[in-house]
Amino acid sequence: MGMIGGGQGSFIGDVHRKAASIDGLIELVCGAFSSNAEKSKASGKALFLPDNRCYGSFQEMILKEKELPEDERMDFVAIVTPNHMHYPPAEMALKHGFHVVCDKPMTLTLDEAFQLKSIVNKSGKLFALTHNYTGHPMVKQAKAMIANGDLGAIRKIQVQYLQGWLSTALEKSDHKQAAWRVDPKKSGIGGALGDIGTHAENLVEYISGLKINELAADLGRFGEGRVLDDDGNVLIRMENGAKGTMSFSQIALGEENNLAIKIYGEKGSLEWHQENPNELITRWLDKPKKIFTPQGFDLYPEAVTASRIPAGHPEGYLEAFANIYKNFANHLQAYLKGESVNAPDYPSVDDGVRGMKFIYASVESDKKNADWVIID
Amino acid sequence: MGMIGGGQGSFIGDVHRKAASIDGLIELVCGAFSSNAEKSKASGKALFLPDNRCYGSFQEMILKEKELPEDERMDFVAIVTPNHMHYPPAEMALKHGFHVVCDKPMTLTLDEAFQLKSIVNKSGKLFALTHNYTGHPMVKQAKAMIANGDLGAIRKIQVQYLQGWLSTALEKSDHKQAAWRVDPKKSGIGGALGDIGTHAENLVEYISGLKINELAADLGRFGEGRVLDDDGNVLIRMENGAKGTMSFSQIALGEENNLAIKIYGEKGSLEWHQENPNELITRWLDKPKKIFTPQGFDLYPEAVTASRIPAGHPEGYLEAFANIYKNFANHLQAYLKGESVNAPDYPSVDDGVRGMKFIYASVESDKKNADWVIID
Amino acid sequence: MGMIGGGQGSFIGDVHRKAASIDGLIELVCGAFSSNAEKSKASGKALFLPDNRCYGSFQEMILKEKELPEDERMDFVAIVTPNHMHYPPAEMALKHGFHVVCDKPMTLTLDEAFQLKSIVNKSGKLFALTHNYTGHPMVKQAKAMIANGDLGAIRKIQVQYLQGWLSTALEKSDHKQAAWRVDPKKSGIGGALGDIGTHAENLVEYISGLKINELAADLGRFGEGRVLDDDGNVLIRMENGAKGTMSFSQIALGEENNLAIKIYGEKGSLEWHQENPNELITRWLDKPKKIFTPQGFDLYPEAVTASRIPAGHPEGYLEAFANIYKNFANHLQAYLKGESVNAPDYPSVDDGVRGMKFIYASVESDKKNADWVIID
Amino acid sequence: MGMIGGGQGSFIGDVHRKAASIDGLIELVCGAFSSNAEKSKASGKALFLPDNRCYGSFQEMILKEKELPEDERMDFVAIVTPNHMHYPPAEMALKHGFHVVCDKPMTLTLDEAFQLKSIVNKSGKLFALTHNYTGHPMVKQAKAMIANGDLGAIRKIQVQYLQGWLSTALEKSDHKQAAWRVDPKKSGIGGALGDIGTHAENLVEYISGLKINELAADLGRFGEGRVLDDDGNVLIRMENGAKGTMSFSQIALGEENNLAIKIYGEKGSLEWHQENPNELITRWLDKPKKIFTPQGFDLYPEAVTASRIPAGHPEGYLEAFANIYKNFANHLQAYLKGESVNAPDYPSVDDGVRGMKFIYASVESDKKNADWVIID
Repeated sequence: MGMIGGGQGSFIGDVHRKAASIDGLIELVCGAFSSNAEKSKASGKALFLPDNRCYGSFQEMILKEKELPEDERMDFVAIVTPNHMHYPPAEMALKHGFHVVCDKPMTLTLDEAFQLKSIVNKSGKLFALTHNYTGHPMVKQAKAMIANGDLGAIRKIQVQYLQGWLSTALEKSDHKQAAWRVDPKKSGIGGALGDIGTHAENLVEYISGLKINELAADLGRFGEGRVLDDDGNVLIRMENGAKGTMSFSQIALGEENNLAIKIYGEKGSLEWHQENPNELITRWLDKPKKIFTPQGFDLYPEAVTASRIPAGHPEGYLEAFANIYKNFANHLQAYLKGESVNAPDYPSVDDGVRGMKFIYASVESDKKNADWVIID
Repeated sequence: MGMIGGGQGSFIGDVHRKAASIDGLIELVCGAFSSNAEKSKASGKALFLPDNRCYGSFQEMILKEKELPEDERMDFVAIVTPNHMHYPPAEMALKHGFHVVCDKPMTLTLDEAFQLKSIVNKSGKLFALTHNYTGHPMVKQAKAMIANGDLGAIRKIQVQYLQGWLSTALEKSDHKQAAWRVDPKKSGIGGALGDIGTHAENLVEYISGLKINELAADLGRFGEGRVLDDDGNVLIRMENGAKGTMSFSQIALGEENNLAIKIYGEKGSLEWHQENPNELITRWLDKPKKIFTPQGFDLYPEAVTASRIPAGHPEGYLEAFANIYKNFANHLQAYLKGESVNAPDYPSVDDGVRGMKFIYASVESDKKNADWVIID
Repeated sequence: MGMIGGGQGSFIGDVHRKAASIDGLIELVCGAFSSNAEKSKASGKALFLPDNRCYGSFQEMILKEKELPEDERMDFVAIVTPNHMHYPPAEMALKHGFHVVCDKPMTLTLDEAFQLKSIVNKSGKLFALTHNYTGHPMVKQAKAMIANGDLGAIRKIQVQYLQGWLSTALEKSDHKQAAWRVDPKKSGIGGALGDIGTHAENLVEYISGLKINELAADLGRFGEGRVLDDDGNVLIRMENGAKGTMSFSQIALGEENNLAIKIYGEKGSLEWHQENPNELITRWLDKPKKIFTPQGFDLYPEAVTASRIPAGHPEGYLEAFANIYKNFANHLQAYLKGESVNAPDYPSVDDGVRGMKFIYASVESDKKNADWVIID
Repeated sequence: MGMIGGGQGSFIGDVHRKAASIDGLIELVCGAFSSNAEKSKASGKALFLPDNRCYGSFQEMILKEKELPEDERMDFVAIVTPNHMHYPPAEMALKHGFHVVCDKPMTLTLDEAFQLKSIVNKSGKLFALTHNYTGHPMVKQAKAMIANGDLGAIRKIQVQYLQGWLSTALEKSDHKQAAWRVDPKKSGIGGALGDIGTHAENLVEYISGLKINELAADLGRFGEGRVLDDDGNVLIRMENGAKGTMSFSQIALGEENNLAIKIYGEKGSLEWHQENPNELITRWLDKPKKIFTPQGFDLYPEAVTASRIPAGHPEGYLEAFANIYKNFANHLQAYLKGESVNAPDYPSVDDGVRGMKFIYASVESDKKNADWVIID
């Protein structure tokens, strides 16, 4: 694995590295950790990388690694930069024959998303998008329960992703994480929408197996001087007629990382909370509430294999994130051996396009005072 | 107190009687428990009432009680019938000089609500609407915290009232409670909207001290053959610019009585759940989460006086309901002594009008495919 | 009902009155609320009692009420005084033909307990002890599940009753509730032991259907100058070989009223918390955790009838307390009609004797440095 | 790092490897994964190790690695075998100049523990014992709060470690994990006592900063035919006079991994649950309950540095385990550079001796029918 971005002080670069390393399947061999060559080398050194594998730009990395013997060069790149720097390295890496793992949202613009999809498809290379929350064992169980019809037809959905860290104007102090997120040049047309709204959208569609058909979005810009949304309230209608609400916010003061989902069917219902991820609460037409836990009872195989340790030993954010990398690595191994693997369970370039469509539909709806907009 | 409705088998009549009796301030002295005189007498007998105070109609009760000596006759009526039978007895009681406690939603139609308000105001009699959830000590604390500015300006609101008991077509079996609720002649133009949506609306406005300025409602009719909504998802905008979502449902399978509210301000936030009513969860800009409890620490007086027992002894639905009656009874005592009392804390005829406006605005919005409708 | 004790400022007297009144089966008709006749009358007046039914002593009340016509006089007395004043009025009331409801622990000494049992048995009158926590619907469900063998043979028990209100020397300020509880003349030989330890003991034996066979108690006296225990840690062995721990405290700082129990069997386990009484958590050999709720699914009839309102409407301390009174009142009605009723479900004089034996065994064990003492 | 034990199918070996790798500070370079050379190689191969670094015995590994150039050979061994195989490899590794990380309980017998302590001290090598639960950020916060006097003098303690997986006689089926744990030759004189009781003992002493002075233990052997305890209930007295209970079990049916602790002081109290490790619940003399979270507010530095990701992103068992390795690795780096480091925060050989003393004291107490035994 070669990393693009994620130098010293980066939060998400470190997460990607830890997630990639947990299962011992992936080794970090090089990086363009910063567009400043000195900084890149310093970051790489702290990661025990040799100087000559620490590059000053992603272009340099891709070109130089390409020249290395096949069994020495990186197999894939992990792109962990701000949104505006997703597409350029992804495009170049794919065109030079490298597989790609990319952070979300996939691109800066919807056009880029379409182009990237086209490039991925033409390249035949693997592409994973790190919608990491789908990696939790209890999310897998939720998805499997619905896919197997345990809940019956879905009628109602509530999903939310609430944070409070942008309640004050952090971006006006020297806070890099805040600064790029409120800057349309780096974030795109969505603020909280792209940063966390897309996780909510992805989680709903992943678990329910249903697409959002149309939405009506009322976005908020509460932080003084913000041009991008920092809050959103959305009505959603699913392709099967189910209805629901979505709410996301970075000004929900005091919330840490409150991603949660509730799905109600004709026969059963389920509820999951990211901050307490090792419980799946289920409700039934004529039975008491049942709580599923990782490595507990009555689980589907997808949930069992997504867990690494015995019941009662909590797994968290990194382990779920690691499941994206693990499934990607397993797919890559099969690919390299020329084996075909069916539907590997990690988010794809199509998920990335969905996310960008969701952002664009939401912004369009908001401009029309929350009129309905169809996501085709 | 004389009761109208609430005969044997009624759920809410029994609740009103228990709630009225807990504090020893109110005595049930008569009732028109059924429009069938025999049934009314049977119900009254089980309540230890003498035969001659059990009437076959509310008209009979009001007229006969009026003829009794003042110190013997009922002081007020409690109306616990289905919605279509709220206005007629309320009007007659007020016009004959009796005070009124009425279940919600206040009337069958918005016109009736306006008329009732006018009658109440002209009569000078007391009128209470049993939006019982505002009686919880931690709801009082929440309201007081916001009123005192502890949370700063409010930015975001989430409120929901989720039940699952109408997930199946109960109304097609012999289920009286279900039958009238899905029947527009008895319920009015709102189904879940009137039955529980109004509680959500009332709770938001009570706690936040803010009016809902406009809303966009997407109602669902999931139960086969239902003409009234059994589900709703609503965007709300408050008078101060705060935004939020409201969700209510009677087809949220497995939910029992999940009324919950979250309010986010610029300085603090709060969260309350009806099914666990003795906790008020608060979050702060730079302090750990704090949990308030009845008779615990740092409470406002309004919260303290709403609780009857020491900390850690859970109070529930009946005790909160009883607070409506207690405050009404105290007001009535003062009234009867000719004392003036400022702003007694129980829901008023104005709250009843708000509730009806909310129902009408929601239905109108839903008809226009969730266009915004202003509640004036 | 005539009340002994429970004058103005009393906590538990008010609880008894509210609990007795909720179901409309019991009416307070007289009281000896204080040994000061003036205060007794003042208390009675606030409760809307006529002056001539407010007595200056329990002796006066019992004698005067006895002289009233049978259909006018009180049917039973409710004794809500500190411990040292339980036996004298109970004895006199029973000997004058009145039934008795008495607060716990039953008496000041074990000898009194034996005598009272003998008097109750000879009198043929009804006697109820208000171990109120056994009145919760989910406690009834727990008991029924074990009685029906759902959990298999019981192996392990944890029970605790933790409060923190005596963490500081409240008794040295003007705090009546604290003062008598730390005074052996009024409390007996047990402090926290009698006040709340007996509730824990009663709950264990009630739910499990098993007697504590022997115990080893390590009592603490943490409050400066206290002669009675304010904390206890106890090993218990049940009659069937199950083992466990009991812990009670009034210096568990910050705890409000944390009575909780966990029982583990060979086939299933259960867990209940008084501060969240409307959940019964159950665990199973090969099934996910199941949560029972009042009026929810798969309940035993004993649990269903102990609940007054639909699922999801929380019931609390007063409602559970009221179940003791309701069952007593129903028994009394049957008794007065000459009907025989099997095993009415409220705590009896035998439970009272068990409680006193538990106190004495614990104190004896503690004196022997936590040696085992058998409760015969 | 060279691993001893932990071949294919091992649970804890995999945990150690993941925990050691998360932070990128430690690399697995060799292993004696099995005493069967074939199996060891197969296990190593799956871990991408070269054949020549996969040994058929720990003796072979230690001797062969010793012969490698210093910058190539392993720095330390990680011992992840059953209890009876802790001492022999630890002794040999230390005597050959390798540092040691060892699973708990430290040794098979108390004598071995004394000897190992002596060897560690003489060797001057580093030694870490993986009492992994002390690695949680909120455990660090708890320890720091008490050390800083926030809770005042400690009065009362409750600690428990409850599992249910040995509720049935798993050891009679082909269940390796169960088999060695109930076998005194491999486990030592303690069953649940050594396996999880020592974790409880270590956690109490770590957080409170107080030693258990004496204990009275009532052990159970509920599984048919078991000679070792599978359950225990213990009274404890701390060196400062605080009292408490400890409970551990592997027959607490349905419990997964319920390690929990509550500590009550004169000024404040705290509560922590391993299954929900990212909350530290605190209670106060005159303030509402406060909940601390990793990367939240008002934390001590020890808690902050023990967390890897922003607030609200749950960390779990592996991350806490990894903190033991991280602190050990940092200490080792300093050691190798000849720097001195004060009191590195990972469990030491002294903790290991404490654990063995605890086991022996408990077994002795149990034999004397739960008489008090002092842990010197």
